[in-house]
Amino acid sequence: MERRSLEEIKQMIEMGQESRQQLEQYIDLTHPADLADILEQLNEEERNILFSLLPVELASETLAETEESHQEGLIESLDDEALQEVFEELSDDDATDIVQELSDHQAERVMRVIDAEDLEEIQTLMKYGDDTAGGVMTGELVSVEMGLTAAQAIRQVRLKGQDIQYFFSVYVVDEHGLLMGRVSVTDLILADPKTPISRIMETDVVKVPPEMDQEEVARIMSRYNLVSLPVVEESGKLLGRVTVDDVIDIIEEEQAEDLLRLGGVDEAESVERPGVLSSIRSRLPWLSLNLGLILIAAQVIHLFLDVLEREVILAMFLPVVAGIGGNTSIQSLAVTLRRIILDGTPALRNWRMIAKELLVGLFNGFIICLLVGLAVYFISSNNLRLASIVSLATWVTMFVGGFIGALIPIALKSMGFDPAVSSGFITNLTDMISFFLLLSLSAMLLF
Amino acid sequence: MERRSLEEIKQMIEMGQESRQQLEQYIDLTHPADLADILEQLNEEERNILFSLLPVELASETLAETEESHQEGLIESLDDEALQEVFEELSDDDATDIVQELSDHQAERVMRVIDAEDLEEIQTLMKYGDDTAGGVMTGELVSVEMGLTAAQAIRQVRLKGQDIQYFFSVYVVDEHGLLMGRVSVTDLILADPKTPISRIMETDVVKVPPEMDQEEVARIMSRYNLVSLPVVEESGKLLGRVTVDDVIDIIEEEQAEDLLRLGGVDEAESVERPGVLSSIRSRLPWLSLNLGLILIAAQVIHLFLDVLEREVILAMFLPVVAGIGGNTSIQSLAVTLRRIILDGTPALRNWRMIAKELLVGLFNGFIICLLVGLAVYFISSNNLRLASIVSLATWVTMFVGGFIGALIPIALKSMGFDPAVSSGFITNLTDMISFFLLLSLSAMLLF
Repeated sequence: MERRSLEEIKQMIEMGQESRQQLEQYIDLTHPADLADILEQLNEEERNILFSLLPVELASETLAETEESHQEGLIESLDDEALQEVFEELSDDDATDIVQELSDHQAERVMRVIDAEDLEEIQTLMKYGDDTAGGVMTGELVSVEMGLTAAQAIRQVRLKGQDIQYFFSVYVVDEHGLLMGRVSVTDLILADPKTPISRIMETDVVKVPPEMDQEEVARIMSRYNLVSLPVVEESGKLLGRVTVDDVIDIIEEEQAEDLLRLGGVDEAESVERPGVLSSIRSRLPWLSLNLGLILIAAQVIHLFLDVLEREVILAMFLPVVAGIGGNTSIQSLAVTLRRIILDGTPALRNWRMIAKELLVGLFNGFIICLLVGLAVYFISSNNLRLASIVSLATWVTMFVGGFIGALIPIALKSMGFDPAVSSGFITNLTDMISFFLLLSLSAMLLF
Repeated sequence: MERRSLEEIKQMIEMGQESRQQLEQYIDLTHPADLADILEQLNEEERNILFSLLPVELASETLAETEESHQEGLIESLDDEALQEVFEELSDDDATDIVQELSDHQAERVMRVIDAEDLEEIQTLMKYGDDTAGGVMTGELVSVEMGLTAAQAIRQVRLKGQDIQYFFSVYVVDEHGLLMGRVSVTDLILADPKTPISRIMETDVVKVPPEMDQEEVARIMSRYNLVSLPVVEESGKLLGRVTVDDVIDIIEEEQAEDLLRLGGVDEAESVERPGVLSSIRSRLPWLSLNLGLILIAAQVIHLFLDVLEREVILAMFLPVVAGIGGNTSIQSLAVTLRRIILDGTPALRNWRMIAKELLVGLFNGFIICLLVGLAVYFISSNNLRLASIVSLATWVTMFVGGFIGALIPIALKSMGFDPAVSSGFITNLTDMISFFLLLSLSAMLLF
């Protein structure tokens, strides 16, 4: 792999004909993923020049690796003939992903210029939802019929397997295209050439329907350590397969989404490399929503202003109790989210999870509330009554916080929402609870 | 795949000899990952009975899939002979992982009873750090010498490839074992049998040194869509390979760690399915640390108690400014973490990221501070001066918060620490800044 700095490449492009040979050599030795990265960092003119120099196969692989925001421009820069060639080289799932993200104008142009066969493949895949097994699968696979021997199957593989990426499994189908089993290419090589394929195939194949959510698909492939997973219609007909590279993308995508949503950022910000404006747009709604929630929580303090007037030192303990309560609930939320990601939502375990968080909050709350009591006792110059009140408020906030940190994401998940969005609600709810506890206890017990 | 409820399985185990046949049929049709799941849910006696019924190959696969906390017990339940057989079937990387997690006593027993060859493999892998390329690689691979033809190479593959899982690439080495290229098994099948292997091999192989961090390994395999990645000594000697199933595990592990650390939970809680006690232990230190930080932030309020005494309504705006500031900094943290995970840390982009967050904080802060000002104006019965002070404090807190939410994780990462641990520090720091701004501005401007 040849590594060159962005500056060197910009220079080579600018020098034109003079450095053409050098540039071609660089292209020849560079991986499409790296080329895509470079393209994204060039200006439009440089980008189109470099892209036009790529041989058609490399151009198509690079296009597939380029971020969505730049694909439209690259496609615009191709004439109809080049566009048709590039799409002929693209795998059907990559082609479909690209077409779905294009403007209507460019998408129509692509559909007009590409081969009838490619068009049909894309239209087939577009039937399924973006984030389902059908949406991420590829129709490009190698299947052989039941009756063959290993040697005959290998001949078939030679014929059909020429242009297929990531093919490690050969699927065995009957005369109606129903999936009967699978053989790894490796087993095929290792088998005695005369063995009938039905003898070496595995019949107990893990398979999924096209409607299955991509998260569930990823979970299955990860659980059973699969490199490719067949997608099968209800009738048993083999439609396509999901490959392991897609699974890695799905896991990384979900990871990004969870991380960002937990932080209160719209997922849109993850996909592209955003400018300042799109960041502002994706975060402002969350901030405004949160502001609303915080103002509601602050109303609780407003109700008790007379208590604060009589004992103003309470103002410094409000954020302490709220902070430690928020902390507990976010711990509980993080662990609960983790379990939901791992397991999906097995109903029985949910109650155990919630009960466990309650217990953990109860115990940790006990330790922390002793520490808080001690700190308040010193800070308030030995006011034992105040120390007890802050301590008690901390304890109750902590176990309620632990409880709702598990309850709310589980409830959201079982209602079909994304549980990661709950962090803002949860911390504001614990804030409100802590304010109410600390101030109402003070009103009752302090004077 | 046969699905049976946990209760049915418990019953079959309890019935003993009578249902033995049924139980064996169930075992025969069940995937090791599912068997491991069942084992974890049985009590010790049932677990050992079921485990003893597994044929040796299945027992070894199931052992590898079982959570670490149960592996010790299963190994204890095996006699020396069975233990030796199970370890003979295990892949070297799984065997090493298991031995490293055992108690000293059982680890020594394993090392004593297994074959000299297996022992050597494990000792080789144990030389490398747990989370490096060397630590996750397997030494089990198929390599062939340069001089062969495709047909000769296939014969070699037949000989050597018998017991190797996930093998899709054949590595080509010279007489000293130096890595010269790779051929996919598929290309080998597709090639003309007489072609010399040096003609069909790729020479531009992506490879990594054994010391490379596993996160970086995963990033490379994901970026270049690799199914297996050779690990090569500085001399060029081929040591082993990392397979795609390990990469998925690494990505999921890192994802869990980030999620939990962001929530202030020790990573230890992710690996096992923890009881209440271990959850308490893993979270209490974070809670205590946070309590300390919150108490320090609260000291800022303590300094300004006289200001609060004169204008007690400020007590209700303290959590508003702190909350919205914390929000901004966590958004900034989430986006920054996301970029760090995606890119590693390219130094140049860091400054751009920090500058961008500052700008986003400045703009969003402007909008939010107007809303805050409006709300305070109404709540305080048209106190314009108070509204302006709270509004200004919000704005400054927001852009400082956005700034440190990007700066601190980048600084931690470049000093070699895990950037995900910074969430606690960041929110407490924004708390402190917001308290200071609101109260000192009030002291200066309000009276």
